[in-house]
Amino acid sequence: MFDAAMEELATEKEAEESHRQDSVNLLTFILLLTLTILTIWLFKHRRVRFLHETGLAMIYGLLVGVILRYGIPSTIYHNKTPPSCSLKEGPVSTLLLNVSGKFFEYTLKGEINSREIHNVEQNDMLRKVTFDPEVFFNILLPPIIFHAGYSLKKRHFFRNLGSIITYAFLGTAISCFVIGNLMYGVVKLMQAVGQLTDKFYYTDCLFFGAIASATDPVTVLAIFNELHADVDLYALLFGESVLNDAVAIVLSSSIVAYQPSGTNTHTFDASAFFKSVGVFLGIFSGSFAMGAVTGVVTALISFFTKLHCFPLLETALFFLMSWSTFLLAEACSFTGVVAVLFCGITQAHYTYNNLSEESTKRTKQLFEVLHFLAENFIFSYMGLALFTFQNHIFSPIFIVGAFLAIFIGRASNIYPLSFFLNLGRRHKISGNFQHMMMFAGLRGAMAFALAIRDTATYARQMMFTTTLLIVFFTVWVFGGGTTPMLSWLHIREIWCKVVVFRVSFTLKGDNLLSHVSLQDGPQHEGGSKTKQESAWLFRLWYTFDHNYLKPILTHSGPPLTTTLPGCCGPLARCLTSPQAYENHEQLRDTDSDLILNDGDLTLTYGDTAITANGASGGHDGTRGEWGGINGKTEAAPERDSEAREHETTSRGTRLVFPVEDHA
Amino acid sequence: MFDAAMEELATEKEAEESHRQDSVNLLTFILLLTLTILTIWLFKHRRVRFLHETGLAMIYGLLVGVILRYGIPSTIYHNKTPPSCSLKEGPVSTLLLNVSGKFFEYTLKGEINSREIHNVEQNDMLRKVTFDPEVFFNILLPPIIFHAGYSLKKRHFFRNLGSIITYAFLGTAISCFVIGNLMYGVVKLMQAVGQLTDKFYYTDCLFFGAIASATDPVTVLAIFNELHADVDLYALLFGESVLNDAVAIVLSSSIVAYQPSGTNTHTFDASAFFKSVGVFLGIFSGSFAMGAVTGVVTALISFFTKLHCFPLLETALFFLMSWSTFLLAEACSFTGVVAVLFCGITQAHYTYNNLSEESTKRTKQLFEVLHFLAENFIFSYMGLALFTFQNHIFSPIFIVGAFLAIFIGRASNIYPLSFFLNLGRRHKISGNFQHMMMFAGLRGAMAFALAIRDTATYARQMMFTTTLLIVFFTVWVFGGGTTPMLSWLHIREIWCKVVVFRVSFTLKGDNLLSHVSLQDGPQHEGGSKTKQESAWLFRLWYTFDHNYLKPILTHSGPPLTTTLPGCCGPLARCLTSPQAYENHEQLRDTDSDLILNDGDLTLTYGDTAITANGASGGHDGTRGEWGGINGKTEAAPERDSEAREHETTSRGTRLVFPVEDHA
Repeated sequence: MFDAAMEELATEKEAEESHRQDSVNLLTFILLLTLTILTIWLFKHRRVRFLHETGLAMIYGLLVGVILRYGIPSTIYHNKTPPSCSLKEGPVSTLLLNVSGKFFEYTLKGEINSREIHNVEQNDMLRKVTFDPEVFFNILLPPIIFHAGYSLKKRHFFRNLGSIITYAFLGTAISCFVIGNLMYGVVKLMQAVGQLTDKFYYTDCLFFGAIASATDPVTVLAIFNELHADVDLYALLFGESVLNDAVAIVLSSSIVAYQPSGTNTHTFDASAFFKSVGVFLGIFSGSFAMGAVTGVVTALISFFTKLHCFPLLETALFFLMSWSTFLLAEACSFTGVVAVLFCGITQAHYTYNNLSEESTKRTKQLFEVLHFLAENFIFSYMGLALFTFQNHIFSPIFIVGAFLAIFIGRASNIYPLSFFLNLGRRHKISGNFQHMMMFAGLRGAMAFALAIRDTATYARQMMFTTTLLIVFFTVWVFGGGTTPMLSWLHIREIWCKVVVFRVSFTLKGDNLLSHVSLQDGPQHEGGSKTKQESAWLFRLWYTFDHNYLKPILTHSGPPLTTTLPGCCGPLARCLTSPQAYENHEQLRDTDSDLILNDGDLTLTYGDTAITANGASGGHDGTRGEWGGINGKTEAAPERDSEAREHETTSRGTRLVFPVEDHA
Repeated sequence: MFDAAMEELATEKEAEESHRQDSVNLLTFILLLTLTILTIWLFKHRRVRFLHETGLAMIYGLLVGVILRYGIPSTIYHNKTPPSCSLKEGPVSTLLLNVSGKFFEYTLKGEINSREIHNVEQNDMLRKVTFDPEVFFNILLPPIIFHAGYSLKKRHFFRNLGSIITYAFLGTAISCFVIGNLMYGVVKLMQAVGQLTDKFYYTDCLFFGAIASATDPVTVLAIFNELHADVDLYALLFGESVLNDAVAIVLSSSIVAYQPSGTNTHTFDASAFFKSVGVFLGIFSGSFAMGAVTGVVTALISFFTKLHCFPLLETALFFLMSWSTFLLAEACSFTGVVAVLFCGITQAHYTYNNLSEESTKRTKQLFEVLHFLAENFIFSYMGLALFTFQNHIFSPIFIVGAFLAIFIGRASNIYPLSFFLNLGRRHKISGNFQHMMMFAGLRGAMAFALAIRDTATYARQMMFTTTLLIVFFTVWVFGGGTTPMLSWLHIREIWCKVVVFRVSFTLKGDNLLSHVSLQDGPQHEGGSKTKQESAWLFRLWYTFDHNYLKPILTHSGPPLTTTLPGCCGPLARCLTSPQAYENHEQLRDTDSDLILNDGDLTLTYGDTAITANGASGGHDGTRGEWGGINGKTEAAPERDSEAREHETTSRGTRLVFPVEDHA
């Protein structure tokens, strides 16, 4: 009995020790992030622009990785070999361990190959810093992707919808197959030279193609934002990268689904190919539907309840519904990340209009913080993983081949598709824009998450190492080279804003309230321009959305009584919210211009402003916008309801004067 | 080889299935929370006040628990017995499993006793809904506790600091020992009757005393807020419950530390007792220091950098630093939850003053949402656990004994201490207040988390079941009875507000800006009153804090040059921020009145208002404050810097008129 008590104590001690170790690991990452934040602040403060926060996070991660690997003497780790016990049956998720009559429950963590067993013995600490890869998919990616969907700038996104979809779907598929086939050539070459010691199938190459096709130009976009580069180019790049993540992730799972067809695997099999295509379409449309449906449900809930009186409840509901999309999709074996993306887009398009003013701010800020933390965490983890991941396989031929392949893959995505798109586009994608899109093909969080998800086989480990190097190279070199590249390609535009101040005076009770609002650019021209320039598909969708969906799902939009045919009168009256009648007139012109991301306001209306005033002003037009991602932008209210309010309370003058940025 | 591939596929399928199951489980909770939010909204909308959101969450949790337990036929679960393998050595954290040459890694989940093995076989689903108890301690409690610290209403908290500390430290210790000893009597009785089949030591009883001493009057406080009950009573209850959680958690770990002293355990041992007291003091002061230090570090960072230009970075830093407190404390074997509490208080006292206006909102809203979600999650989990937890031990004698013991324990905390406190207090704690404090001894999240942390032994399982029932009973019965109780004790006060409108006109550029601000109650009298009524200890601390700490750590407070003796002139000039000189005059009076929780503004100044105008007005004074936790309250700005701004820009009139609530 005394023995048992001592043993129990030992177990407790060990559990405590393990908990402490976990705390230390997390603490390492938090200190890394803190350091990153402080350095970012210093960079922003001193206007250093060649290194983005994600690049910085990677550098700090690298440093800590080096320290963990080489700096700490390995004697301080627990270096005992875990005991092993054998079983005839296959691996099970739960295992009971019988230690002299007492039972302990164990859960499966994963398979480890012979090389790794050595590592298990060698270095407990480095293994512990390594997270479960599913953490990336289930915890860190969803907020990043949701935020991307929630902050899609609608006007320019929809204006270029056709091109964006072409690049994202067709382009990613082309890129995937080009990279896959090129890498298969590289693999064959390696086998011929004798550099490849283990199996590497064709499907593995295709899988690598899918991983390496997920672009993430976060660095480039941040610089675009700061330098006010062309808005259409921004929309193309941002839209492509957002949708392309979804395509790449679904593509990778359908390639995995391609594999097992009898014993004769790993050669081309038509039926398996069509099965894969079916899987792709099934997963994609299923995830899309799931995201859209939960978005619409949230919109309906916020439409029919008066939840906007309680912003805390509203925000919590919004957060929970968006998260449930992810879980729902995962529970139905669809792809949660894709569902969350479309949920974000739907929430931004409908629910956002029903939220109280405070909740719109709250939800945006909440997801902004989550996105910021998750993204920087992933990038600093990448830096760390280069030194702490235990199964790197550096194969120079494979790496060089991969670098060539991704450039060729990107080129065969952008240039041919741009050519075909330009045949149909009124507003052509110029050669310089194409070069810039080519240049902005950075790889980031999604490629990393896809690569780390499965590192069980030799082939996958080699892919992981290569992907990591690709991310480092593209983020540092291409990310850092964005500013010179923009200048070189003459994309960086000179800036001149038209600022409209509206001063309105209202008599409320005995008090005279004055209200000064800042609006950018003449909106009405913008609105009509959108409609003219859009493709017919978009116009069709726009009309349907504006006339039927918006009035049913949100408090904005025209009343249904005016859009539905006369025979549906009673139904229309029943579904239309009282607010809709009041705001009918104002909304017709403004809601197509609705900009969600306040921070990009000047950017979005910029082209309109320039056409009205001509390019003028100094060269460095960015000073005033340096804090663009931050609070200053709150000064520019751009919601339906707010616009309405100004309209109704304003009896004042409209002062229009061009403001040149601090040149 | 074919076999191996099939086997691998089977493992993958199983892992996928397990992931799906996890998603479904989380989804269940999210739907529960969604349902709770919608019902809360309905209740708030219809002004139903007898059931608080936490009580509601428990009811929904109970319903889902019943469905999971009895509604779903058990045939759809996996009912296979996990294979077992035996080992001679004690349990280890990592185990390797050798299945025909392939190695799989397993991690220890915990010990299971003989009864549970049966359950492992029986019902996989119910087991899966059961979370790892550490989730409560490491993920859900920290945001709740931090939020409590961050939103401590400073003025009334400090005014009653002595009493609060007495109740929290001495009171909780008394309550713990009274309950522990009474329960030991009950256990002896059960042993005599033959109702107790397993071991139940004196230390177990004391541990139960610590668990059951953690009060959580969240329901009562919410109603206080809505009904504007007495502010001092509110401060006493809130302050006590916040600190008392910290005391209870440290108390429970020092009781655990008491146990092992040779073979003759479980009898009184003086050396072990003093060791326990030492552990208590060590853990408590260590955690306190850790929390205070990270808070001060954050204040210094925000003081010396100009991070407030970038609210996103600022918020992220604030969040990370606060979280790192928790991890740091855990890594040093202190108590993270306690550290987080004091970190929250420090952040609110210092860092808050350095944050940009947007960040103050952001941080408050962020932690508000996290707190809301975590709290409701815990309460709905409690409901669920009553039916899904597999090892309940319902012992009628123990339960009845425990109910009696907690009331006696609470009574021997409140009444004697109040008597002694009243000897020294100028503002006595009346009999009715004492009854109300007695009545408000609800048990909640902390008691539950402490009880579920360890349910390995028979005694602990019995405690867990009993704690769960205590929480249910107190939250529903006492929480629901708060409103009648307040009326019955005549604590519910009639309300009459003094509203001060300040209309200020400023000429900025060519525009006339008018600014209408709403302020409640005359602040200056309040400020001096605070100083008069406070204990000497507090006055000493206040002077030191106001004259030295605030100027060093924040941009508010008087310049150091005026507070430090002349000889320290150069140092003082070097440490004083330029802003400090500007705001010198205004700040002297206002910062002691700084109210953090905007929602409670009217409440806080209410007593002042009443003394000035006398009680008048109707009976139901709550209509206008119904949305108190929400957005409306943003109208009342109460930060140092804002107060300053009003002061400097106001050249206008001051209209003071009493406003009677919609009677």
